[in-house]
Amino acid sequence: MDIKIIEGGITAPKGFRASGVHCGIRKSRTKRDLALIVSEKRAAAAAVYTTNLVKGAPLTVTKDHIADGYAQAVICNSGNANTCNADGIEVAEKMAALAGEALGIPAEDVIVASTGVIGQRLDISPIAAGIPALTAALGDTCEEAAEAIMTTDTVMKSVAVSFEIGGVECRMGGIAKGSGMIHPNMATMLVFLTTDCAIAPEMLKKALSADVKNTFNMVSVDGDTSTNDMVSVLANGLAGNEPITAEGEEFGVFMKALNTITVHLCRAIAADGEGATKLLECRVTGAKDEAAAKTAAKSVICSSLLKAAMFGADANWGRVLCAVGYSGADVDVTTADVKFISAAGEVAVCENGAGIDFSEELAKKVLSEDEIDILVGFRDGDASAAAWGCDLTYDYVKINGDYRT
Amino acid sequence: MDIKIIEGGITAPKGFRASGVHCGIRKSRTKRDLALIVSEKRAAAAAVYTTNLVKGAPLTVTKDHIADGYAQAVICNSGNANTCNADGIEVAEKMAALAGEALGIPAEDVIVASTGVIGQRLDISPIAAGIPALTAALGDTCEEAAEAIMTTDTVMKSVAVSFEIGGVECRMGGIAKGSGMIHPNMATMLVFLTTDCAIAPEMLKKALSADVKNTFNMVSVDGDTSTNDMVSVLANGLAGNEPITAEGEEFGVFMKALNTITVHLCRAIAADGEGATKLLECRVTGAKDEAAAKTAAKSVICSSLLKAAMFGADANWGRVLCAVGYSGADVDVTTADVKFISAAGEVAVCENGAGIDFSEELAKKVLSEDEIDILVGFRDGDASAAAWGCDLTYDYVKINGDYRT
Repeated sequence: MDIKIIEGGITAPKGFRASGVHCGIRKSRTKRDLALIVSEKRAAAAAVYTTNLVKGAPLTVTKDHIADGYAQAVICNSGNANTCNADGIEVAEKMAALAGEALGIPAEDVIVASTGVIGQRLDISPIAAGIPALTAALGDTCEEAAEAIMTTDTVMKSVAVSFEIGGVECRMGGIAKGSGMIHPNMATMLVFLTTDCAIAPEMLKKALSADVKNTFNMVSVDGDTSTNDMVSVLANGLAGNEPITAEGEEFGVFMKALNTITVHLCRAIAADGEGATKLLECRVTGAKDEAAAKTAAKSVICSSLLKAAMFGADANWGRVLCAVGYSGADVDVTTADVKFISAAGEVAVCENGAGIDFSEELAKKVLSEDEIDILVGFRDGDASAAAWGCDLTYDYVKINGDYRT
Repeated sequence: MDIKIIEGGITAPKGFRASGVHCGIRKSRTKRDLALIVSEKRAAAAAVYTTNLVKGAPLTVTKDHIADGYAQAVICNSGNANTCNADGIEVAEKMAALAGEALGIPAEDVIVASTGVIGQRLDISPIAAGIPALTAALGDTCEEAAEAIMTTDTVMKSVAVSFEIGGVECRMGGIAKGSGMIHPNMATMLVFLTTDCAIAPEMLKKALSADVKNTFNMVSVDGDTSTNDMVSVLANGLAGNEPITAEGEEFGVFMKALNTITVHLCRAIAADGEGATKLLECRVTGAKDEAAAKTAAKSVICSSLLKAAMFGADANWGRVLCAVGYSGADVDVTTADVKFISAAGEVAVCENGAGIDFSEELAKKVLSEDEIDILVGFRDGDASAAAWGCDLTYDYVKINGDYRT
């Protein structure tokens, strides 16, 4: 089960090309706003979507397009979410049609996604005008597409791995955007995954649905579940492995490769949360069951008070226990231990539900690093879980106090 | 059902005295940190508490003390929550014993409350040393006690009303603290209510439990449910009315008086949320049932993104609909209307789930006021609800980035 991190992002797997251009949806000319990902062969496709009752029009169109388990391309714009618009579906269908036409594939094989402001009509003209440049720019690099899907993100998020299925080398890559309105539920942000591994659509769907529960659904930047969250994966089979059609060792390797990609992107998304200066990872151990561990871990990551304390490098661990206590998780808080760990060391602050003496100086050092692990240990059982988030900063307020202008 | 707002806070009802002193729990000498409320007669008593699994020791002691439905005094310190401490119960019992001794009443008739940092041992010495001054200061003014329970609050919160039960004038008063870690569930913050109305303990409990569901449980400053939330009420019967022992018209008047007090304090708590510059009230109408209306209203009030937008006076209404959509409320978002209203006017921004043209200039004016109403209208039925919160500001981050120092 050797999973190697490699270069190349979504274009690392065989037969995938990508591009990104500035077509004019965003006023800023320096930021690309339209992305395209294409497989040279029709690929098994799966996606998971937001559970928000308000759903972006592109999600409805995508769901329809991949109902048969296959797709060949992804088109995505940033700068406008195409959500809560009377003509949203029509515009999303038009995006697919224009991309399909330019690529010589059916519109029904195009996945559509949008991210940006909600409730402003998305004008199709800049997209129509930009598509020739977009298709002309298709190539082996992933960066342009990764940039084109960004909104308030400050860094591009991409990763790729190689793994072996039945002795054949396969590759998988992913890009993501996600900085604010990040608190996915059953899906997340925008994440596009590609792989050349041959796998049946139903197994691809199974792998993705199982994985997101422990990865993207355990990330929160601000507790707000977006209307446009989507994770999609295209598997074109060009690696040449014997297709995965059932559970077993090979499906296990595939799941492991997928999880390597998704955890990497989760951490990248949390670390680049709007205004964030620190990546927070809460690891819960010793819980009665996985549900309790996950509920507790996510509650800690979501606490505004704890997030602000982490920004200030303040070891205010009472806020950790408080967040566990109101989470609804079935845990025995009177036996909880709490520790903070970072590259600068580790500091235990609470044992058996009560505070212990600790060095404030060491705590300050530990919490001044840019990646902080918050460990919460129970004595209820042996289930564990991890959740990812970031600190709450002045810049989060600044970014969101005037997003539209 | 005439409810009149009057002066006097918790000492407005007959037979109640209060005081507040600086005893030394807080380092700052300018801020009182120990409060006392006493009824000259043993009073019917009821309280509701946090649902956080982590519960402050004072709550356990109070629950025990008012199990018989009666109490005569309240002692409360700020600066330390007496929570997650190995000797917490012992210290809370000692607070009650010292107060009881000084007042010549049983310790079992004393309600105990604490608010402040979690997980630091509460030293009983300054409290013991302060009690003589505290009892000596007992008087007819409410301000000293209202100040002594404050933490990061910037204003005192007190209110009183008069009402008639069977032709007899009764009075009720309340004080509250609550600025951060405010997202009560079944109880809230620290709120102490007094009334001279004669009412049976079981009816008092019934009134309080019913009221908090629509008032304190609908307030959120930061989504964090405290470990020490408590609302208590003492009813000493000195108004001389025929005691209320069953539901009916008089119980209705009592509920109305109680609701006038609690809504006032809810608004005061939300407006003084940590770092807040604006009071937000979300009113949902036309929902299928009360549960849907409440869930939707509270979700809007809790959205970090919306709260930041309100700070920036940005009419980013997509965030309102987004928060309704992920709330879990059973509503039809495709028929939702959204309006912002303030003293500066009113601006409709969304109709039937889709954006409409509006004047950005007017919206900016409306949202620049310090009290903003967010109206969300559905066409699902005739249930409605209100929730209270505040904007998310730089100062919230500042206050909570380094609370302990």
